Amino acid sequence: MESELIDLFKSTRTATEELCEPLKTEDYSVQPFVDVSPPKWHLAHSTWFFEQFILAKYRQNYKVFDDDFSFLFNSYYNNVGERVLRPNRGNMTRPAVSEVYEYRTYVTTALIELLESNSSSEIEELVRLGINHEQQHQELLAYDIKYILGHQPTFPNFDTKLKLRAQSSPTHFVAIKEGVYDIGFEGNDFCFDNELGRHKVFLHDFEISNKLITNGEFLEFIEAGGYQNFNLWHAEGWDHIEKNEIVAPMYWHKVQGKWMYYQFNGLEEIELEQPVMNISFYEAFAFAEWKGMRLPTEFEWEVASDLFDWGHLWEWTNSAYLPYPNFSKQPGALGEYNGKFMVSQMVLRGGSFATAPNHSRKTYRNFFHPSCRWQFGGIRLAK
Amino acid sequence: MESELIDLFKSTRTATEELCEPLKTEDYSVQPFVDVSPPKWHLAHSTWFFEQFILAKYRQNYKVFDDDFSFLFNSYYNNVGERVLRPNRGNMTRPAVSEVYEYRTYVTTALIELLESNSSSEIEELVRLGINHEQQHQELLAYDIKYILGHQPTFPNFDTKLKLRAQSSPTHFVAIKEGVYDIGFEGNDFCFDNELGRHKVFLHDFEISNKLITNGEFLEFIEAGGYQNFNLWHAEGWDHIEKNEIVAPMYWHKVQGKWMYYQFNGLEEIELEQPVMNISFYEAFAFAEWKGMRLPTEFEWEVASDLFDWGHLWEWTNSAYLPYPNFSKQPGALGEYNGKFMVSQMVLRGGSFATAPNHSRKTYRNFFHPSCRWQFGGIRLAK
Amino acid sequence: MESELIDLFKSTRTATEELCEPLKTEDYSVQPFVDVSPPKWHLAHSTWFFEQFILAKYRQNYKVFDDDFSFLFNSYYNNVGERVLRPNRGNMTRPAVSEVYEYRTYVTTALIELLESNSSSEIEELVRLGINHEQQHQELLAYDIKYILGHQPTFPNFDTKLKLRAQSSPTHFVAIKEGVYDIGFEGNDFCFDNELGRHKVFLHDFEISNKLITNGEFLEFIEAGGYQNFNLWHAEGWDHIEKNEIVAPMYWHKVQGKWMYYQFNGLEEIELEQPVMNISFYEAFAFAEWKGMRLPTEFEWEVASDLFDWGHLWEWTNSAYLPYPNFSKQPGALGEYNGKFMVSQMVLRGGSFATAPNHSRKTYRNFFHPSCRWQFGGIRLAK
Amino acid sequence: MESELIDLFKSTRTATEELCEPLKTEDYSVQPFVDVSPPKWHLAHSTWFFEQFILAKYRQNYKVFDDDFSFLFNSYYNNVGERVLRPNRGNMTRPAVSEVYEYRTYVTTALIELLESNSSSEIEELVRLGINHEQQHQELLAYDIKYILGHQPTFPNFDTKLKLRAQSSPTHFVAIKEGVYDIGFEGNDFCFDNELGRHKVFLHDFEISNKLITNGEFLEFIEAGGYQNFNLWHAEGWDHIEKNEIVAPMYWHKVQGKWMYYQFNGLEEIELEQPVMNISFYEAFAFAEWKGMRLPTEFEWEVASDLFDWGHLWEWTNSAYLPYPNFSKQPGALGEYNGKFMVSQMVLRGGSFATAPNHSRKTYRNFFHPSCRWQFGGIRLAK
Repeated sequence: MESELIDLFKSTRTATEELCEPLKTEDYSVQPFVDVSPPKWHLAHSTWFFEQFILAKYRQNYKVFDDDFSFLFNSYYNNVGERVLRPNRGNMTRPAVSEVYEYRTYVTTALIELLESNSSSEIEELVRLGINHEQQHQELLAYDIKYILGHQPTFPNFDTKLKLRAQSSPTHFVAIKEGVYDIGFEGNDFCFDNELGRHKVFLHDFEISNKLITNGEFLEFIEAGGYQNFNLWHAEGWDHIEKNEIVAPMYWHKVQGKWMYYQFNGLEEIELEQPVMNISFYEAFAFAEWKGMRLPTEFEWEVASDLFDWGHLWEWTNSAYLPYPNFSKQPGALGEYNGKFMVSQMVLRGGSFATAPNHSRKTYRNFFHPSCRWQFGGIRLAK
Repeated sequence: MESELIDLFKSTRTATEELCEPLKTEDYSVQPFVDVSPPKWHLAHSTWFFEQFILAKYRQNYKVFDDDFSFLFNSYYNNVGERVLRPNRGNMTRPAVSEVYEYRTYVTTALIELLESNSSSEIEELVRLGINHEQQHQELLAYDIKYILGHQPTFPNFDTKLKLRAQSSPTHFVAIKEGVYDIGFEGNDFCFDNELGRHKVFLHDFEISNKLITNGEFLEFIEAGGYQNFNLWHAEGWDHIEKNEIVAPMYWHKVQGKWMYYQFNGLEEIELEQPVMNISFYEAFAFAEWKGMRLPTEFEWEVASDLFDWGHLWEWTNSAYLPYPNFSKQPGALGEYNGKFMVSQMVLRGGSFATAPNHSRKTYRNFFHPSCRWQFGGIRLAK
Repeated sequence: MESELIDLFKSTRTATEELCEPLKTEDYSVQPFVDVSPPKWHLAHSTWFFEQFILAKYRQNYKVFDDDFSFLFNSYYNNVGERVLRPNRGNMTRPAVSEVYEYRTYVTTALIELLESNSSSEIEELVRLGINHEQQHQELLAYDIKYILGHQPTFPNFDTKLKLRAQSSPTHFVAIKEGVYDIGFEGNDFCFDNELGRHKVFLHDFEISNKLITNGEFLEFIEAGGYQNFNLWHAEGWDHIEKNEIVAPMYWHKVQGKWMYYQFNGLEEIELEQPVMNISFYEAFAFAEWKGMRLPTEFEWEVASDLFDWGHLWEWTNSAYLPYPNFSKQPGALGEYNGKFMVSQMVLRGGSFATAPNHSRKTYRNFFHPSCRWQFGGIRLAK
Repeated sequence: MESELIDLFKSTRTATEELCEPLKTEDYSVQPFVDVSPPKWHLAHSTWFFEQFILAKYRQNYKVFDDDFSFLFNSYYNNVGERVLRPNRGNMTRPAVSEVYEYRTYVTTALIELLESNSSSEIEELVRLGINHEQQHQELLAYDIKYILGHQPTFPNFDTKLKLRAQSSPTHFVAIKEGVYDIGFEGNDFCFDNELGRHKVFLHDFEISNKLITNGEFLEFIEAGGYQNFNLWHAEGWDHIEKNEIVAPMYWHKVQGKWMYYQFNGLEEIELEQPVMNISFYEAFAFAEWKGMRLPTEFEWEVASDLFDWGHLWEWTNSAYLPYPNFSKQPGALGEYNGKFMVSQMVLRGGSFATAPNHSRKTYRNFFHPSCRWQFGGIRLAK
């Protein structure tokens, strides 16, 4: 067995745990909002994936850590039976956090033993899938931790290395010529099923900015009454901000006349030069309307991305999340993976400062519902 | 002024009124479901459009029929002021139906006078827009009347000429070669803003059926447990059918073990050879999954449509409703028209038996939320 | 058969129809709020009561007017079977209003024939119950018509004789001595089951006002910030007014700085001397708190009522609607009548200007949920 | 200062902490249901009460433990200002459990010092109120812990001494003669404001059972179709059980055809001889209807209670929670205490196995909304 994969597996497992290390026990179990999962659930679910799809199948005489866990930390509820009580992520105080860490150790150890003793390309492919799955959950953990702590009335400091990088260069627009371009993943490395099916797309001439919109630029939009001018918004977006009384990005609070935001280390003043984040697709669209420009499509983004600096934040595109030609679901429970979300979501491209190293590539298709704001997403304009 | 336009205007106005003629006064004012508008509202709103955008501006000394009406029958609420009470379409018993018909006559007469006396290409363009707008409402009226009457416990007969045509030929698949195709409206005739911006799209090889799926085929899906097999559904679609206890197309009722449906003339037995209708995008998608095929994209549909018979029912595509390259909103209140709906909707192409004559063309982009079922939509498969 | 009962029956039926006479056909079918029933429903339901409980049982060879009607206009749904579609009062456009009037005539005629030809004390008792039932619906009709028309953005005039009487005498408080008092109905005349079981109640000394609170007095409460001072409110009442943004009685609108209200003849200025009406129990309680007084109990009211003028408005008491000692439900469907509402409701005593003549007595127990405001209720204080 | 009060204070504080001792840190912060508060909140709120109403006022140079705490653990939100973020009990992971215990120690110590050094009858009265307040929260803690753990899919064991006592004697009915009785608290000991205002009530002859209804008797009701027979239910109760799909008491689960329940030590078989508990007022009423009896009023209960064994469970009465004659609210924030709940609640009398020693008396008026089931309430019948 190649030691590179074992090392990658180990470092991924460790990274998840290091990310959570500054949490208090109390922080692990709450679910303040339906899209947020408790950190404990992420820790256990990413472990369950390795147990369920690899150890239970390929490890001889493997004894599952706890029969309940496969039920409690499974997100694929539809393929398993009902029990007396359906688990409710946010109220699940048991098993305790310490037991979940024991579960992680148990599975990590068993998987390393499997890889060292008796591997195969089939197993390795699944391990790579599991690693990428856990890396996705690392990023979701960052979103969810920010949400949980950023909604404490005390705005506690969370001691993390996660921090947005500055954008250095001055703003300009990159021009791309019309033509037929190849889209989608190519090569032998890992990618998700939704990137596959390399295919051709015709693009017309367009220009795209080399920089993300900053907090300072977004503040101008706020102060120009952007949130009060329905002409800038989708009908659905307007209803959403009215109903939810949204007047600024998530985590922004006006304190004694001054805009502050929560950024992991407590409530602080808005940094004008940093890219604006924690905004919905509706807000990104309205901002672009206000500027007289538009968001790029995911295809424009993929073609142009070699020409600018990306990876600060996921970038909203004006593309709906739809299957590529010849997309096909994998058989079995893994087949639930991506296809079932291909409606009513918008694509984001790039990666964020919370994305695991080597987990981003220009063909990666992230996606969220247009109203979602808790993920680390920003705005790049095209015209 | 060219008499062709006056004739078209007159016949459109008359067609709307003939469609409603079999209604009872009581049927005009209810709104049993948020997407349905009361017939009275359609009659008045399509009239208000001519008054507000043409007569009030171009007709000298024009006196509006009633100041309240411009407020009550305006769907563009956001651009007008608030009043003491916001109109609630479904509880608006006043003005009476007879007053709305008087309003129609008043405006129809005034507009004919304007066209006969003092027209211009600017006015004519707006009249054509108003005619197309009213034709759209004719089709919505058909949907809404079916909904209102089809949800009466007595399933009353509605005496209408509207009837699905039979599909004659045997099923086969039409093959289209890959290449760059032109998409969007071309020419000088009327079209909506969302069809404009003719542009190129690259399509890969595909095949598309010459026929719509029938009730008989859909019944097989039901009987094979299609509504119980979550693997066939989008996650969001599955939640939707579970929450709403959907187990068949809208208007289908199982009466003493036999499937019946409401089709304007009361509850009758399902006709197996007729195209299945009143299904959501979720249901169309799940059916395609079950067949091992897929829905076409709107571009595939537009390119292939010369090769099959269409116009029975609007056809769900797997394309989200998004702007074409270079799409731009018109200025003013008319600019609210289409662009603000370009999120979270799916495109349907073609036309239905309730579409006004000459109101369909192969570039026409209809759109509904994926959960909508009350519009007259069906399924055509591709692979 | 005594002609007094026939005359009473006829005049009651006629009174219902006269009350509705100024309505337009469109007004009969809407249900803008869950507690409101469409006028058509009241007309048919009060008729169905006579058909179902008397004609169907005692009239030989009686042929029901329409089989559907007994299903559609039954409020006792739980005792009848389900159908394909459950009737939804507010969207029931069929049967038409004219058919409901035919139904009324058919049943009125048949019942008079029955009474003239072949009566009995058993039948007569049921007819008296049916008359009282219809009289209750007359009052509900007045509430519902006010709600339907008072929520039209055009505030139409409704040509009715219904009008609050003025209160003439100056305000003073009537004192009652402590002691054991008899409560509940006594005699052979008609009363409802909830008034029966005459029993003893011990009352302590109390004083009660001879007059209802006026709009002018209530305006002082509004202007003193009564709706903003949570200390005056029940916790549940405070939540209710906050959630529903209630800042004045129902039908009050502040128009250009001046308080107006809808009172059947359109929007008019508040009449300061008239009793305040269309307020919830929560509002009545908060007003009493603000005055440093309280609402009377229903027992205090019944004992003191001989000493003041009542019948202007139903008067909120601070008594919950609970069974008297020895209360027992009648057997059969009629047994559903009152007992099943004896939780979470507050008692109102007296009668209003919309109460049918001879339909009020001092033992009458009316009841509404504490949040209800559309009934014609007012405030009398005690201390 | 009398040492009895100091001892009582200490033992009360200790009892709260001993009750929570078997909890895991994770169990302290969740709020799985709106009526449940997180155990951490109870621990802090009962402490805040002593700090806010006694130490801050009477302890010289007292320094509050943490300024945030007075905001976060105050249930009297309406009398304090708003902050940037409103605390949401169930998602409040910070402060940590350990900090809350530090807060308890800090306040307990300071209060003992105050009582030892510089007391007064005014302070002592407030301390007694605080002790009774904390004892109420001890009982709520028991309900909430049972809810939190009883809704874990793993049904964990909670190691507690809390256990229902058996009822020994055979069932018989006690008869009480009609007459005027005195109701309400008398004496100099502690009681709540809602018990005060001793007054006279006339009672008619009645009989009341000496025993609570058992699980075995309630099972007969279930098996006789009690939950399916709407004639037994209040209209509101029937809607409630239908909407919430209630077919048995809370915590009952049918496992492989056998009724089990959660009772602090995991899922176990129903004990037929134990009193039935965790039922709503609606269920208690429906059971009484089925038996052809009724629930006692709170006055009947108070008069008869000397004649039977009580204290197993709180006992639903058929009395609404309303003020006694001459009830008056205390001034200030403490005045919010009881009066603001006097609408839409039903009275329970007695006490339960989770009630603190010496915290029950026959005049004690407990109250819950008729739908509540998580409190430890049972059924005693009258006739």
